[in-house]
Amino acid sequence: MRAAVLRGPKDVVLEERPRPRPGPGEVLVRVLSVGVCGSDTHYYDHGRIGRFVVEAPLILGHEASGDVAELGPGVTGLAVGQRVSIEPGVPDLTCQHCLAGRYNLCPDMRFLATPPVDGAFAEYVAVHAAFAHPVPGSIGDDAAALLEPLSVGVWACRKGRVTAGSRVLVTGAGPIGLVCVQTAIAFGATEVVVSDVNPSRLALAQELGATAVVDVRESSVTTLDRPPEVLLECSGHPPAIGEAIRVLGRAGRAVLVGMGGDEIPLPLSVLQEREIELTGTFRYANTWPTAIGLVASGRVDLDRLVTGTYRLEEAEQALTAGRRDDRAVKVVVRPTT
Amino acid sequence: MRAAVLRGPKDVVLEERPRPRPGPGEVLVRVLSVGVCGSDTHYYDHGRIGRFVVEAPLILGHEASGDVAELGPGVTGLAVGQRVSIEPGVPDLTCQHCLAGRYNLCPDMRFLATPPVDGAFAEYVAVHAAFAHPVPGSIGDDAAALLEPLSVGVWACRKGRVTAGSRVLVTGAGPIGLVCVQTAIAFGATEVVVSDVNPSRLALAQELGATAVVDVRESSVTTLDRPPEVLLECSGHPPAIGEAIRVLGRAGRAVLVGMGGDEIPLPLSVLQEREIELTGTFRYANTWPTAIGLVASGRVDLDRLVTGTYRLEEAEQALTAGRRDDRAVKVVVRPTT
Amino acid sequence: MRAAVLRGPKDVVLEERPRPRPGPGEVLVRVLSVGVCGSDTHYYDHGRIGRFVVEAPLILGHEASGDVAELGPGVTGLAVGQRVSIEPGVPDLTCQHCLAGRYNLCPDMRFLATPPVDGAFAEYVAVHAAFAHPVPGSIGDDAAALLEPLSVGVWACRKGRVTAGSRVLVTGAGPIGLVCVQTAIAFGATEVVVSDVNPSRLALAQELGATAVVDVRESSVTTLDRPPEVLLECSGHPPAIGEAIRVLGRAGRAVLVGMGGDEIPLPLSVLQEREIELTGTFRYANTWPTAIGLVASGRVDLDRLVTGTYRLEEAEQALTAGRRDDRAVKVVVRPTT
Amino acid sequence: MRAAVLRGPKDVVLEERPRPRPGPGEVLVRVLSVGVCGSDTHYYDHGRIGRFVVEAPLILGHEASGDVAELGPGVTGLAVGQRVSIEPGVPDLTCQHCLAGRYNLCPDMRFLATPPVDGAFAEYVAVHAAFAHPVPGSIGDDAAALLEPLSVGVWACRKGRVTAGSRVLVTGAGPIGLVCVQTAIAFGATEVVVSDVNPSRLALAQELGATAVVDVRESSVTTLDRPPEVLLECSGHPPAIGEAIRVLGRAGRAVLVGMGGDEIPLPLSVLQEREIELTGTFRYANTWPTAIGLVASGRVDLDRLVTGTYRLEEAEQALTAGRRDDRAVKVVVRPTT
Repeated sequence: MRAAVLRGPKDVVLEERPRPRPGPGEVLVRVLSVGVCGSDTHYYDHGRIGRFVVEAPLILGHEASGDVAELGPGVTGLAVGQRVSIEPGVPDLTCQHCLAGRYNLCPDMRFLATPPVDGAFAEYVAVHAAFAHPVPGSIGDDAAALLEPLSVGVWACRKGRVTAGSRVLVTGAGPIGLVCVQTAIAFGATEVVVSDVNPSRLALAQELGATAVVDVRESSVTTLDRPPEVLLECSGHPPAIGEAIRVLGRAGRAVLVGMGGDEIPLPLSVLQEREIELTGTFRYANTWPTAIGLVASGRVDLDRLVTGTYRLEEAEQALTAGRRDDRAVKVVVRPTT
Repeated sequence: MRAAVLRGPKDVVLEERPRPRPGPGEVLVRVLSVGVCGSDTHYYDHGRIGRFVVEAPLILGHEASGDVAELGPGVTGLAVGQRVSIEPGVPDLTCQHCLAGRYNLCPDMRFLATPPVDGAFAEYVAVHAAFAHPVPGSIGDDAAALLEPLSVGVWACRKGRVTAGSRVLVTGAGPIGLVCVQTAIAFGATEVVVSDVNPSRLALAQELGATAVVDVRESSVTTLDRPPEVLLECSGHPPAIGEAIRVLGRAGRAVLVGMGGDEIPLPLSVLQEREIELTGTFRYANTWPTAIGLVASGRVDLDRLVTGTYRLEEAEQALTAGRRDDRAVKVVVRPTT
Repeated sequence: MRAAVLRGPKDVVLEERPRPRPGPGEVLVRVLSVGVCGSDTHYYDHGRIGRFVVEAPLILGHEASGDVAELGPGVTGLAVGQRVSIEPGVPDLTCQHCLAGRYNLCPDMRFLATPPVDGAFAEYVAVHAAFAHPVPGSIGDDAAALLEPLSVGVWACRKGRVTAGSRVLVTGAGPIGLVCVQTAIAFGATEVVVSDVNPSRLALAQELGATAVVDVRESSVTTLDRPPEVLLECSGHPPAIGEAIRVLGRAGRAVLVGMGGDEIPLPLSVLQEREIELTGTFRYANTWPTAIGLVASGRVDLDRLVTGTYRLEEAEQALTAGRRDDRAVKVVVRPTT
Repeated sequence: MRAAVLRGPKDVVLEERPRPRPGPGEVLVRVLSVGVCGSDTHYYDHGRIGRFVVEAPLILGHEASGDVAELGPGVTGLAVGQRVSIEPGVPDLTCQHCLAGRYNLCPDMRFLATPPVDGAFAEYVAVHAAFAHPVPGSIGDDAAALLEPLSVGVWACRKGRVTAGSRVLVTGAGPIGLVCVQTAIAFGATEVVVSDVNPSRLALAQELGATAVVDVRESSVTTLDRPPEVLLECSGHPPAIGEAIRVLGRAGRAVLVGMGGDEIPLPLSVLQEREIELTGTFRYANTWPTAIGLVASGRVDLDRLVTGTYRLEEAEQALTAGRRDDRAVKVVVRPTT
């Protein structure tokens, strides 16, 4: 099969690779669409993310959909030809965290496109059958791939206990911020304020349902009328994080979604006096059924986020689309169509 | 002032009563709209509800909106002329339940139109300022009154932990069931099945967003494809309650909203094997801000439920509208307009 | 190996069986102690429990400890000779319930001594390595076996949200009731009232920390000074269940632990007016680490519950000990010592 | 009556003051015991704590017990002569936070010994009847006063979701740290590690049930065998806070109890990768019933913390006891005995 392989920083080539064979409990998926994530571009640019280092050629891509091409031994719940969205992280299923339902914290997680596990910028990928989620016809191939970033938003809203009537601040209107706007509304939020520096993204946020936007080049979230109850921090920008926490109301919840370096200053006295809860987030768990329901019911529109589609041989262009066009939001690669 | 007074079963007359004077911390509200609730018609028909007996003439009506006509001593947060929705139950604020945030369980609750406390089928009513909730102009007078039944739906969804992607069964499509359909969707439910025996109400349920309806004269909730996760029981019909619990999936939640007599048979083995949680509900607490947000944002449409409006002198007709027309859903009395 | 086999109601014989071989991910455990549970005696007496029917010869016993005799392929976290407590139910690990952390609700659960899965009244049993929990030397063999019923109590307390200062009513002072007394105290309960008809069991309840006991032949739980906040229902006696729910305070939680037939009458109006939460329980999930901590720290004393020990060839006597002596609480079989 | 009045930094004098008269809903309490808190000594030393400035003479002391000397108008639940523990903060009862049960976050809280509200270093103090909690005879006067710091520990354990089997790290073994050790155990924790620099306090921690202690002058919490699940941070020492968060396990909870300046560095990547929840705490809500239960049942020993008792005229000595003796833990003033 063909695969786009990262050989080193800024070095992606199309290679022939043997088609994977699905092991027991696995299915082979013919890949239809793969979203490009910030982590993919980070690996592409730097060859590493923190302690994860690309030491051998690596296939990127972990936001993927496809159809089932072959069943491994023992698989019963899926059929060849069935269209699926791939949940890219497969945990060991038996550690204390897995058994407690927080499998995202499994120390033995194997995650697509995270060294040394190859990803989905390829014609085929083998995945655990329980992590290949069937999708209905109402969800297109790209949207099926983008259930992965949608899961990040679903997880953020769960962690922040967003519910009917919540007032939410989303800092950062990149793909994850824009997904969070939509999930916050789908969870019932009635006020969703979004801040960013990019006017085209803020416009898109409004189109997707944000009730107010703040261009932080001109204004500040500190000028809000009413303090938000929940912060979904998607900027990863340390000064923005501190400022956003400071505008939260009493009993507020701050959910850290974006990455922002090893250490940031924390407004301790604000946390104490307002009894704010702050939580880190690490991927997601048990989000696909919810994400499928939200897209199938029309509550969330993922196709609206797609600003470019590429063939597999254009993988490098896909990986660099964001830097060429600040109106780019989410681009996808379609390896087999 | 004029008031519609219940003197005994099926005996309502218009009387002149002294205008109430707002005590310390209270406001006097000129009543603009009052919904007729099943409890009002029950008092009208029978002169009692369980242990609550109408022993002296009683003004009915507890779903009310109005504008502030006068401030009692010490009130600072409201202004004369401000339009408000009335939360009809005022607890003692200091018992263990109040201090813990579940003031609906306060043993010293004073609740409008519950003997011996007069209600709002009158030109004026005095209420605790903290329980007179200002409403924005986007919410009409009737909808402002109907924030009370909406609160029942909000409370039911909270108790049932309805959230994004939930699959919900609502049994009974009366006013409360129809409100629950809308709140379930507002809380993010992506499947809402409604059962009833009244085709016009089922049609309205669908119009309000139900994804499927079951006419239980012809079919049964036991034929659902997938078991619901949450039951919002609004029928109060004991056989329906048991049947509905039996269709819930594992880890399901059954929220009892309708009343249905002192004792009902409970499918114990189903509760055990599926580890179902069942909860009673008693009114609501801390629901007005959410209810206001849902209506103001257009998530919930209360006006669509209003099938009749009456003047104060027509209170008796309002109380009997439901028995005359099975297409009636919610009727309101407008005492001063 | 030798095994005590149930061939039909009241027909247990010692047989030679082939020693099981541990499959991939399994360990072979030499059984040191097995508790006799009410379900064992029920199978012995009736050959069935509800829909579970003993259609082929079955080895009973699911409360077991032992030491690791052999590692199956791929097992790394355990060593031969290590002493373990066996968690008797192994779920499929990948269904929606397993992934969400409630693996006790897995529809494909395989549970020891539940037809057609053989149990631990035998010299050896093969179990999934992740469900063979190492125990420290401070926990004896019998106590290690009885971590299983202790898990029932831990689960009940979690479901009832028992915490520091809770006031708890335990109905029924059989082995599970006595475990619940101890777990309630370990979870911080400061009042634990126990009801039963058996004075020796009530005396043991007091010895184990109950703050009050009610002999329901002479008195009633309705005479309590203060309503309990949590009911741990361990009697399975329908009239007792209804009565106990009626004494719960507002916002109380009723946890059904005992079985009591398919249907019971439920005091609906009490559930509604007091907004009581009632929950079924089905086995347990993620309880072994807690149970081990409670016994190792001396918070819970399981040895005190053991009123008889038997050799494997005395399995039938063990299964009938309860009917011969109403002072019997928990008896254990020691197959290899 | 006599009162110890703070006129400025390090300037406390005994004055005659008019005996307060209990207003409606209040009781007059004759003060029997008052604990000296770190905030009292901070006001004594600096005349301010953050934005709270002592601008007029102030009576310190907010950890107080006494007996009811007089009932204000309308008080029915208490009797003259009844012994009570005083909850020192009285909220407005009607704001959104109060109604939701988190009255500790009420913006209109009036709190004893917080400018401009006088405290309890006096013979009498008037308090809201609902915040004067009757205590049983099994709780002594000093312990009744120290239910206030105990409440801080109860609140911390609730926020950290400490439960049966929890493994807890308490950083700082001052009075609050020592209370947290006891509450963690009372909530069911089976491992409680305590760190401090003061060997006498660490010895006392062990006596009170800590399962391990770390003298951070010689060792470090980073050497623990197993990562704790819950951090109760009572040191207020920024480097200790960061280090302690870094030793928490995945899904850990960090509860900030100590104050530590306006801003501290937060290990963001650790929070993210382990999905740690961090929460501020501000006083407590609904803790007295629990605290009373824990002391009355012998679960918590507050008398063991008292290292000195003073008369009212010795208030200044009481306020400076800590700096004179590093073995001092908690000193109390007894204004009327």
